[in-house]
Amino acid sequence: MGRSSSLLSFSFTLFILFHGYTAQQWPNECQLDQLNALEADQIIESEGGRIEVFNHHAPQLRCSGFAFERFVIDPQGLYLPTFLNAGKLTFVVNGRGLMGRVVPGCAETFMDSEVIQPGEQFGEGQEQGQGQGQGFRDMHQKVEHIRCGDTIATPPGVAQWIYNNGNEPLILVSAADLANNQNQLDRNLRPFLLAGNNPQGQKWLQGRRQQKQNNIFNGFAPEILAKAFKINIQTARQLQNQDVNRGNIVKVNGPFGVIRPPLRRGQQGGQQPQVEGNGLEETLCTMRFTENLDDPSSADVYKPSLGYISTLNSYNLPILRSLRLSALRGSIRNNAMVLPQWNVNANAALYVTNGKAHIQMVNDNGQRVFDQEISKGQLLVVPQGFAVVKRATGEQFEWIEFKSHENAQINTLAGRTSVMRGLPLELISHGYQISLEEARRVKFSTLETTLTHSSGGPMSGRPRVEA
Amino acid sequence: MGRSSSLLSFSFTLFILFHGYTAQQWPNECQLDQLNALEADQIIESEGGRIEVFNHHAPQLRCSGFAFERFVIDPQGLYLPTFLNAGKLTFVVNGRGLMGRVVPGCAETFMDSEVIQPGEQFGEGQEQGQGQGQGFRDMHQKVEHIRCGDTIATPPGVAQWIYNNGNEPLILVSAADLANNQNQLDRNLRPFLLAGNNPQGQKWLQGRRQQKQNNIFNGFAPEILAKAFKINIQTARQLQNQDVNRGNIVKVNGPFGVIRPPLRRGQQGGQQPQVEGNGLEETLCTMRFTENLDDPSSADVYKPSLGYISTLNSYNLPILRSLRLSALRGSIRNNAMVLPQWNVNANAALYVTNGKAHIQMVNDNGQRVFDQEISKGQLLVVPQGFAVVKRATGEQFEWIEFKSHENAQINTLAGRTSVMRGLPLELISHGYQISLEEARRVKFSTLETTLTHSSGGPMSGRPRVEA
Amino acid sequence: MGRSSSLLSFSFTLFILFHGYTAQQWPNECQLDQLNALEADQIIESEGGRIEVFNHHAPQLRCSGFAFERFVIDPQGLYLPTFLNAGKLTFVVNGRGLMGRVVPGCAETFMDSEVIQPGEQFGEGQEQGQGQGQGFRDMHQKVEHIRCGDTIATPPGVAQWIYNNGNEPLILVSAADLANNQNQLDRNLRPFLLAGNNPQGQKWLQGRRQQKQNNIFNGFAPEILAKAFKINIQTARQLQNQDVNRGNIVKVNGPFGVIRPPLRRGQQGGQQPQVEGNGLEETLCTMRFTENLDDPSSADVYKPSLGYISTLNSYNLPILRSLRLSALRGSIRNNAMVLPQWNVNANAALYVTNGKAHIQMVNDNGQRVFDQEISKGQLLVVPQGFAVVKRATGEQFEWIEFKSHENAQINTLAGRTSVMRGLPLELISHGYQISLEEARRVKFSTLETTLTHSSGGPMSGRPRVEA
Repeated sequence: MGRSSSLLSFSFTLFILFHGYTAQQWPNECQLDQLNALEADQIIESEGGRIEVFNHHAPQLRCSGFAFERFVIDPQGLYLPTFLNAGKLTFVVNGRGLMGRVVPGCAETFMDSEVIQPGEQFGEGQEQGQGQGQGFRDMHQKVEHIRCGDTIATPPGVAQWIYNNGNEPLILVSAADLANNQNQLDRNLRPFLLAGNNPQGQKWLQGRRQQKQNNIFNGFAPEILAKAFKINIQTARQLQNQDVNRGNIVKVNGPFGVIRPPLRRGQQGGQQPQVEGNGLEETLCTMRFTENLDDPSSADVYKPSLGYISTLNSYNLPILRSLRLSALRGSIRNNAMVLPQWNVNANAALYVTNGKAHIQMVNDNGQRVFDQEISKGQLLVVPQGFAVVKRATGEQFEWIEFKSHENAQINTLAGRTSVMRGLPLELISHGYQISLEEARRVKFSTLETTLTHSSGGPMSGRPRVEA
Repeated sequence: MGRSSSLLSFSFTLFILFHGYTAQQWPNECQLDQLNALEADQIIESEGGRIEVFNHHAPQLRCSGFAFERFVIDPQGLYLPTFLNAGKLTFVVNGRGLMGRVVPGCAETFMDSEVIQPGEQFGEGQEQGQGQGQGFRDMHQKVEHIRCGDTIATPPGVAQWIYNNGNEPLILVSAADLANNQNQLDRNLRPFLLAGNNPQGQKWLQGRRQQKQNNIFNGFAPEILAKAFKINIQTARQLQNQDVNRGNIVKVNGPFGVIRPPLRRGQQGGQQPQVEGNGLEETLCTMRFTENLDDPSSADVYKPSLGYISTLNSYNLPILRSLRLSALRGSIRNNAMVLPQWNVNANAALYVTNGKAHIQMVNDNGQRVFDQEISKGQLLVVPQGFAVVKRATGEQFEWIEFKSHENAQINTLAGRTSVMRGLPLELISHGYQISLEEARRVKFSTLETTLTHSSGGPMSGRPRVEA
Repeated sequence: MGRSSSLLSFSFTLFILFHGYTAQQWPNECQLDQLNALEADQIIESEGGRIEVFNHHAPQLRCSGFAFERFVIDPQGLYLPTFLNAGKLTFVVNGRGLMGRVVPGCAETFMDSEVIQPGEQFGEGQEQGQGQGQGFRDMHQKVEHIRCGDTIATPPGVAQWIYNNGNEPLILVSAADLANNQNQLDRNLRPFLLAGNNPQGQKWLQGRRQQKQNNIFNGFAPEILAKAFKINIQTARQLQNQDVNRGNIVKVNGPFGVIRPPLRRGQQGGQQPQVEGNGLEETLCTMRFTENLDDPSSADVYKPSLGYISTLNSYNLPILRSLRLSALRGSIRNNAMVLPQWNVNANAALYVTNGKAHIQMVNDNGQRVFDQEISKGQLLVVPQGFAVVKRATGEQFEWIEFKSHENAQINTLAGRTSVMRGLPLELISHGYQISLEEARRVKFSTLETTLTHSSGGPMSGRPRVEA
């Protein structure tokens, strides 16, 4: 009898297995009946800061194709050069710093002008330069100042480093799109370290034996590195950083002397060359990769009493065309509401940079799949088509949204440019079984496009001027 | 002994499971050794018509990436605004009607000119307009007349409604491409309802608990809707349609007063702006989404005694470039034959709108995977590369084919532009071990390009003039 | 007791199964901790040569999306026309031959000028031409001479044939990209045979009952073929090649009389029309599909003492834009080293055409996943981001690399255009905890861009002139 019950439980297990298998055959990753706000899952501590990786096995992140990370770089912390298998967008949440990226084939356009003389040949100069200690000269690729609000595009395979030269933590969040064809591997985030290491290993990768992640020099034989770099074996071994466990963000003691222009030029764009038609390798070197989204003077939607919304897409940052990503920055005051809307052609990853808001989200079945307050440091995925409404509940609610389309479009449910405004009155009347007068109110009462006061009670007299 | 046989059967089950698992690891969705004509699977009955969903777990639909639906809208039936997670093409099989879609950000360009005066400010006008009952004014986005033969492109996330203002059923079929990157969710069809509901739920979604599908207002709290629309809670509740089970197609009692131009202008296209380079949001508002494929005068292949074939691709309907879809309309007479051909760069979903035909299809292994008569209302998937031959067996065979490439190309096996015509005679002779005379007959006997008489016996004297 | 141990083993099996299942839910195809050089897996022997199919269930090929084949065509062997479900690139490793492809809708531009008179109508001429045996006339699509070093692009669905008119084996290797959207079926290689057959069947397809693969005529009823081609049933049956098992490469006895231009024109390209904007069907007919990569005079990197590297991308062969493929040809001398590098935006399939080399490859975890000598006839997959270093160990190492991006880019670790050169000295110093002097050596010692002498010991005096 005990035996038959064992058999029964086996059958049951088998049934579950089989059922799971069948359901899996055609993955329903976006069968989202319940969403939740995500927080960092794995924390990779380093000498000079930490990297927080959000669980990208959470169904909503899987569905969206995004991998999400948060970087906290301490003052004088240096995030060592790393590249990814996917294009990504990074937003500077807090602090300021220096950033460089090495675009393959581009020239070292930043050089110490005092030391290198025009016409001086490099090969000889090198010998002279050696051993001068302080007064050495250098040349390297472009270095940029970054500050709060900057949104930075990084193509796959392009190594990027960041240094915190401020005196508060430099905090960045970044979303990599694993689902588009810039990533030619499987749907896993794969950082390739040029220097440093990750003593914990890439825990987010299922099926890999957990072990320390080393920099890519580590995998080569020191003799080969010595020959490739024409250096001695000792130095080659040091490139491998085998012994130290400083992580991927190290602490710089003393000054960090890189060549950079004086602080901040006006961040205007000017006419940018387009990616297509010219060829990536011709224009990538001078292409703009960064845009600031925190300047209300360039906001796309602005209403002093409510807040502002700025967007970044391939029209104002052409590199996004090849990365197939865009971003939206929002900042709204207490009780301001972002009118209900959905993403037409993209998934979005919404990260709260400040304050809190109450958010409701509705899936394709008309079910409310999210109905919570979300606050600073939390992440919410908004899949394509899912309708969402946000209402600031704290003093100021600020967020950044990364979207998986270079020109992500939204459609609003209410407001002057909404879907309801585009529908005929008669249709609204018949569709919802309401009178034409009610239909007219549904259609015309809200004159704002995007932002409104949620404290404004229903039917409260004269409509507000539009946002 | 009974025990060991149980164990044996377990082992066997496990083996099957494991085997299934292994095979699944690399999905062979297009391993099609047997195809069959598909018919609607789930019927969603509504007050004013019904929606028939074809089983998109059928391997051939899975392989092609298409989701296929058929809409039957009764006279005075109104298909309430709905949007999808994928781009789709819709063909009007029968009847006539009005159609509107709400493109995000586009202006309401249709307005009652008698009531709104030029220069009149809207905000004030609204107060005057209220409560006038009959003489109310409206403004909304473009409304089009649709009729038999119209092929309509709908981008993802764009809400569309259809009204049957004729006196026979308005029948439409539509194919959505879940496999291209316009769909950023998983490979499931997800209609998002703006109004109405689906009491049966989306039965085609595996793994979701079956429950009624509501409109997206339903998922929001009424208080939030009231604030967003600046309406009272009562009206907000009515937007949710919670109690009524009228479905997604409702019956309009009385006149349906939407602003529309007088019946039908000539359907000529004119010069259309292209999607790329200008930006979707700038040109989408004036872009053409519809083209009629039933006018033999614009046919691509025409032979009075046999029939005609018309195609729609991104050259004659530029919006198809972003949707990555195209269509082919065919109409052939009894015993006419469409010469054997294959799709070079696309999958096709072939739906019979009238009559019947005998179809043979051959897969990559040279096996005949379909050999049946297919008739009105049936759907057949023709995967990329699969060779197919059609022969009308009834009075008139008419079909519409949706293809998963904006410029789907075919290659014919026989005929004046066929692959055999492009091959050297010597190659045909050696490849099939036939004499040069036979090879010449294989190559040159059929002078038509696409259509021929199947009643024409073999070697029947003088070749016909070409189609 | 025996029973409980059985149960235990069951549980264990279940655990494994379940574990496997879970891991599978999100496929980790690129979780490559160990790579190996691949060799042909299935050999399809034919009358006039053989086709070797590499195991595309090997994880590294799965990860890359490539399917890889090697063709050996004997003298007077004729590879019968075949098309694929994916775009592919083919490289001629050895020998010379004639090649034709039939592009849908293009005219037969090669014709016997002596026989067909200008103005002569074709339909009548045909009757005259019949039965003349030797002096018959023909017209067909373009035929090209191919020779060692030619790299040939073939779109999906386009039938291609090859004839060996030399007196040594004609050897070709080809990589088809199953992962990009030119393939609209599942991720399996599917050759469609227009003539010939494959008696062994497509063994590489899992889940299909193993059976002979026939040509696509075989699947149609002979009566239908007879009507379509207007030939007699006898000839129709011969098109099906049902009885003969000559395979897909047949032997041509006697002369192979196709129309072709005199041997080889200069292979210069000239200004090519672009795919986009003009429409494939307008320009495809005159588009160039072939380019020779073995001419050192057009090398991209050239250093007489070390070797050369040539690349082929959508800038020098525009058809590659739609195929989303590119290629790299390398030839280096003994002890020459290709500096460590990674693919920025593509996977690569590296095939050794001559000699041998020692290769080290490093994955995202910093592990050495490949460290072997690879020699003529072996294939190695280099996934996106994986760093690789090659050192010729034989007399001359020659290889061809196919890449899954129309403009594949690399980034080198060492050398004048490397990532290290783009980084500031201070960063290198802090990142690897080395002195500025050491950092300067790491950064500036190697002046070559791509190729260097691996025999050059570490720190060997004056740096070499750049490659």
